[in-house]
Amino acid sequence: MNASEFRRRGKEMVDYVANYMEGIEGRQVYPDVEPGYLRPLIPAAAPQEPDTFEDIINDVEKIIMPGVTHWHSPYFFAYFPTASSYPAMLADMLCGAIGCIGFSWAASPACTELETVMMDWLGKMLELPKAFLNEKAGEGGGVIQGSASEATLVALLAARTKVIHRLQAASPELTQAAIMEKLVAYSSDQAHSSVERAGLIGGVKLKAIPSDGNFAMRASALQEALERDKADGLIPFFMVATLGTTTCCSFDNLLEVGPICNKEDMWLHVDAAYAGSAFICPEFRHLLNGVEFADSFNFNPHKWLLVNFDCSAMWVKKRTDLTGAFRLDPTYLKHSHQDSGLITDYRHWQIPLGRRFRSLKMWFVFRMYGVKGLQAYIRKHVQLSHEFESLVRQDPRFEICVEVILGLVCFRLKGSNKVNEALLQRINSAKKIHLVPCHLRDKFVLRFAICSRTVESAHVQRAWEHIKELAADVLRAERE
Amino acid sequence: MNASEFRRRGKEMVDYVANYMEGIEGRQVYPDVEPGYLRPLIPAAAPQEPDTFEDIINDVEKIIMPGVTHWHSPYFFAYFPTASSYPAMLADMLCGAIGCIGFSWAASPACTELETVMMDWLGKMLELPKAFLNEKAGEGGGVIQGSASEATLVALLAARTKVIHRLQAASPELTQAAIMEKLVAYSSDQAHSSVERAGLIGGVKLKAIPSDGNFAMRASALQEALERDKADGLIPFFMVATLGTTTCCSFDNLLEVGPICNKEDMWLHVDAAYAGSAFICPEFRHLLNGVEFADSFNFNPHKWLLVNFDCSAMWVKKRTDLTGAFRLDPTYLKHSHQDSGLITDYRHWQIPLGRRFRSLKMWFVFRMYGVKGLQAYIRKHVQLSHEFESLVRQDPRFEICVEVILGLVCFRLKGSNKVNEALLQRINSAKKIHLVPCHLRDKFVLRFAICSRTVESAHVQRAWEHIKELAADVLRAERE
Repeated sequence: MNASEFRRRGKEMVDYVANYMEGIEGRQVYPDVEPGYLRPLIPAAAPQEPDTFEDIINDVEKIIMPGVTHWHSPYFFAYFPTASSYPAMLADMLCGAIGCIGFSWAASPACTELETVMMDWLGKMLELPKAFLNEKAGEGGGVIQGSASEATLVALLAARTKVIHRLQAASPELTQAAIMEKLVAYSSDQAHSSVERAGLIGGVKLKAIPSDGNFAMRASALQEALERDKADGLIPFFMVATLGTTTCCSFDNLLEVGPICNKEDMWLHVDAAYAGSAFICPEFRHLLNGVEFADSFNFNPHKWLLVNFDCSAMWVKKRTDLTGAFRLDPTYLKHSHQDSGLITDYRHWQIPLGRRFRSLKMWFVFRMYGVKGLQAYIRKHVQLSHEFESLVRQDPRFEICVEVILGLVCFRLKGSNKVNEALLQRINSAKKIHLVPCHLRDKFVLRFAICSRTVESAHVQRAWEHIKELAADVLRAERE
Repeated sequence: MNASEFRRRGKEMVDYVANYMEGIEGRQVYPDVEPGYLRPLIPAAAPQEPDTFEDIINDVEKIIMPGVTHWHSPYFFAYFPTASSYPAMLADMLCGAIGCIGFSWAASPACTELETVMMDWLGKMLELPKAFLNEKAGEGGGVIQGSASEATLVALLAARTKVIHRLQAASPELTQAAIMEKLVAYSSDQAHSSVERAGLIGGVKLKAIPSDGNFAMRASALQEALERDKADGLIPFFMVATLGTTTCCSFDNLLEVGPICNKEDMWLHVDAAYAGSAFICPEFRHLLNGVEFADSFNFNPHKWLLVNFDCSAMWVKKRTDLTGAFRLDPTYLKHSHQDSGLITDYRHWQIPLGRRFRSLKMWFVFRMYGVKGLQAYIRKHVQLSHEFESLVRQDPRFEICVEVILGLVCFRLKGSNKVNEALLQRINSAKKIHLVPCHLRDKFVLRFAICSRTVESAHVQRAWEHIKELAADVLRAERE
């Protein structure tokens, strides 16, 4: 395919994309296919001779679309939102064309420098403490990671390296393994599974602190665990506090646990993967209070800030803590500026070596929406979740399980888990809307997350009518 | 921005991209900017009100392009190629629009199933042993990772989990830390820095096996290290063999070291990040002989197979080895098919949770080029590197440092490192072409890698003329 054919096909694809987005409401949100549906539909091996573009685009409708879960349908209320916006898609086209691999400053200076400045822009939108910003040539700074899982892992590894160095400086006879055996990290029992995984990968113990009645980590429970573990000879070194848990969007009490982490010389990583986007609104900024105690902070603009996946924003107060955990400098990656102290080589900040020019997406989205446009977007979602909440509260058969703070409503039929499992099963079998459940303590709970960029009050209302009907069926079936 | 504005701006962007690619030869391959160039050019904070698209696209030329290293210029001969093709860009547009997050089968069945089948297609192109394929419901299978670094890390973590389980099954009193302290992994002294990093992250020792005169790992050196380490009470558990090293595209001797790994019950990971793409050509397939001894194999279609970054292809013989290292199943990610044994939840195969619909790029590229088109592309690059090699060989002032096998030529002026450093410095200051160096033992060497999709004989000839002129200057300056 040459440039002139790309001009033609690219424009057709732009129309295909626009048609898809405009017509998505008409597609069934969750597919009908069974496992293994796709393989029989395509050849067993790649063709020797080229296929035509027409064949391929026809196959997209015939083979791919029937198996797609439409995350951007206004009837998709599952998981958490994943961002999608036209400005981000335009930026991604440019990113693909430039196609640089930004592992070092020299590998494409614009790629590194725009990222640094965009992370400052975003940090300012959140009113992050200045210590996290790069602009005044301070010690902090931001980086785009691929996902919150990677941010948590990178933070844990940096903390692990730091504590090992500190302990070995004091007692040079200590081996790394002897120290690692005693290291212990913490998160609340509501933290995302990626935190447990970071512990597994890092080869350290991870303990779950029991959350309180609002599913928040509090000082007393943390303090208790620390006392017990220190008495057992363990070395607390790392804590993940979550702002907006995946299960129910609860918030750990940062103002309580932050000072404890600082006092105990533990690295505090704050994971606000979903909720973080809301902090650009002054009325939600208080939820971030206490971030000043953190060593690292992360949230995902690719969830709720209209920047398509992947774009996970991470800041640290001391960037040498990150780079110290990873820094290796082979000759083929050296360049003349690298020891000047003026530049950033982002490869030292992350797990992979290669990286795309992802800050273009931030730049396009922030400029084409403006801060006010982004704030309006967040507010609309929060308003829709409260609208759903009030519908649920008006129906005495249902209960709201956790305070609704942002765009997630956790609700259930009053009654057994069985009846709620049956309700969810009916909802997801009908495929008019799509939800996923969670467990809160011993309760099976339905999660209703405001997800799509195009979801409106009418969709929420229709979803609730549908849920009510299915609930009536479930309750009738139960009585019979 | 609504759909109709996206139709307009998207088409403008398609033209911008096509213009960029068509005109890239006229842009200086390496930028003139100094560290910190970008920040003064843009506001200190995001705008409150939206900017226009015109403003943004004008700023791309004014602010971004002056700082871009043009990886797809036919005068870019640095690092290794990074893939770029129009079919891949078209697929990425579609990927952005569907915008699903494919962490589980249910999260978008098409995303998971196309990936599984594309990995089989690609495995067949390489004539990988059947044990690595998924199609016959065997125990193996393929997954798209973000980068070779992640593939190496995932393999090391899987191997670590496996050996810990095995040793603890035999001696339940052994702690994980006690085992980890004794674990030792190996690679050649020519392996990529990401291998050393995987060892750091995994918290295990990594030892470099001295390579032979052709920069290849051989049986005798490995055997020697194993004997010594076992005598010291260490536990060898993991080996990375490289096919096509980053420094000089040398090949570890898989047929020698593979059987040793199998005999010693060590996990063998084969990293062919760059060279792997060439194995689709029958005349280069012999370079992959011995992969039958491997537990995992990885190469990067995003380097040399026209699939834009990121797309790192990894296969394992036993997928439960990978998933066993990571598997965690919170309720909000559970779905009704997950324990059926029929489906793949790729989140258990990788470090991040989220993942894009990257197999679309493979599907578009494989179909629009056909296997023959892809083979022709590889062959053209190899031919161009041999053309450059023969130019170098005709000039008695220069020497070729390593046998040229694929698209990389390692060469230098006969003489001191200093004179070669001076030559490289002149080349990269002139900015007509872009190269990076490497060290081979104590020698400073220039790497000339055939990179761009559009590079032709004329570019190689012009590059050589330019290098010769600068070499003459350097040698003259040295004599004076």
